[in-house]
Amino acid sequence: MVHPRLTLAVSIMETIAILAYAISGFLEARKRRLDPIGTFLIALATAFGGGTVRDVLLERRPFYWVEHQEYVIVIFVASFFAPYVLRLVSHVISERALLIADAIGLGLFSVAGTSIALDAEMPPFIAVLMGVTTGVFGGIIRDVLCNEVPLILRDSRPYATCAFVGCWVYLLLARMNVDSVYSVLMATGFILVARLVTYKFDVRLRH
Amino acid sequence: MVHPRLTLAVSIMETIAILAYAISGFLEARKRRLDPIGTFLIALATAFGGGTVRDVLLERRPFYWVEHQEYVIVIFVASFFAPYVLRLVSHVISERALLIADAIGLGLFSVAGTSIALDAEMPPFIAVLMGVTTGVFGGIIRDVLCNEVPLILRDSRPYATCAFVGCWVYLLLARMNVDSVYSVLMATGFILVARLVTYKFDVRLRH
Amino acid sequence: MVHPRLTLAVSIMETIAILAYAISGFLEARKRRLDPIGTFLIALATAFGGGTVRDVLLERRPFYWVEHQEYVIVIFVASFFAPYVLRLVSHVISERALLIADAIGLGLFSVAGTSIALDAEMPPFIAVLMGVTTGVFGGIIRDVLCNEVPLILRDSRPYATCAFVGCWVYLLLARMNVDSVYSVLMATGFILVARLVTYKFDVRLRH
Repeated sequence: MVHPRLTLAVSIMETIAILAYAISGFLEARKRRLDPIGTFLIALATAFGGGTVRDVLLERRPFYWVEHQEYVIVIFVASFFAPYVLRLVSHVISERALLIADAIGLGLFSVAGTSIALDAEMPPFIAVLMGVTTGVFGGIIRDVLCNEVPLILRDSRPYATCAFVGCWVYLLLARMNVDSVYSVLMATGFILVARLVTYKFDVRLRH
Repeated sequence: MVHPRLTLAVSIMETIAILAYAISGFLEARKRRLDPIGTFLIALATAFGGGTVRDVLLERRPFYWVEHQEYVIVIFVASFFAPYVLRLVSHVISERALLIADAIGLGLFSVAGTSIALDAEMPPFIAVLMGVTTGVFGGIIRDVLCNEVPLILRDSRPYATCAFVGCWVYLLLARMNVDSVYSVLMATGFILVARLVTYKFDVRLRH
Repeated sequence: MVHPRLTLAVSIMETIAILAYAISGFLEARKRRLDPIGTFLIALATAFGGGTVRDVLLERRPFYWVEHQEYVIVIFVASFFAPYVLRLVSHVISERALLIADAIGLGLFSVAGTSIALDAEMPPFIAVLMGVTTGVFGGIIRDVLCNEVPLILRDSRPYATCAFVGCWVYLLLARMNVDSVYSVLMATGFILVARLVTYKFDVRLRH
């Protein structure tokens, strides 16, 4: 039996992940000095864009943000205070903490996306692809809306690559009938560590 | 009972709104000297992009432009004569009239989008969000295709904000069981006036 | 009865078309020196983006790339060797051959898109539009992701226009009850020739 504390851990990571993605939207919006509604739209697209694209591809409803209106409202309210939120965040949370939070998001979203795609009976390679999409597409939409080359294409540090390998780890664990909470935690942990280690040692991939 | 002239008023506003959005596509296409088919694609995306994204999110079919092929054909034919259409428009219609037509479009599309989302049983905050999406996403697609930062993000004058508030006005009226034609007209009028007044007095929102 | 060699011809053209589109993604990715996963995502979006958008609009599943996982895997593997693949291609295949392969892709994708839209009971003008979307949208997504004005908007040489006319040719043949393999081949051939001839004689459309 899965320990309830592990289920709680997944819920906490989910909240961290959504907030981390929304904050990366706030940061981009501040650079462009957007008004609150513009800030809100960018943060929302960053936090929920990847999952929404996946759900459109899979014809899956309701969307996460429709079922969890409360996150949308929290991001909305925060958008009005984004400069203060960001100042507060930068006082309380170090840049390293933000990197970790974002890596948790990358891990959890990618693994959850793979799991959902498998449930929808996608073949394995496609399921992994949908997982990576879930993890990285929010950031791509954010950058496209702000008229920048998506960060994951600009930055030669492995990001989508970490998610890609981690989704295969998840697939493997799922095939071995490891309980889903454990396999989600392990695969997410794998992506988190892979991202932080490659970042730390400044690993670069480039043709 | 709703006076048939009011229903007619909504139909006329709809035509004005679609043409105004298509013309804003023509203007963008002229700046880039696109050929007729490119002009057509941009105008089409501007006029129907917002509603199409909303319908994809709501899994709603048929699209407006599938049911009203005639608008597509009118825009297609106009695309071949876009330079002349624009010259004609600039002679007959002042820039102020175009601003008003666009504001009617913003109002009507946003309010109609909210109403459709409510019919699809979306929660209130999400319905308002879908309304704003309907109103502003056509312009966002136009700008992304033309590789510009979307105007609603660049321009600090309230645009999405007017739509956002107006959609809440509609929601309120709908909750008060005001007849739908009246509430559409009133909320659209609200957005129209809000947009024109904030534009006139050069109100600017920026963090 | 349709000769089996013609059906084979369509299958071969399909493979050529997908590979040609993927290669145009590789070329764009090389310009930006993307890593293998970034290269893969761009190539995938270029090859399957148009058909995916069409299928989302038509609520049609499964996607081609879900049913033909093998193409995705081939493109994936090739992404790791993209620089070598491109060098090989440039040795074995002339630039002219690439142009022809891309024109086959434009023709086949557009015509197939029109045919699929007609099967979904779209009205004729809309079906042609969906055909053109199928043919050109992959390239648009590729360019938007790489933060460029889409080539079909930048380049004044007719591209979407060839597809547009060719889709009408297909529609006409389909109305005349010409067998579908013949009409696909003839309309694709029309687009191929139209593209190559207008390219050769440097025909330019511009307002």
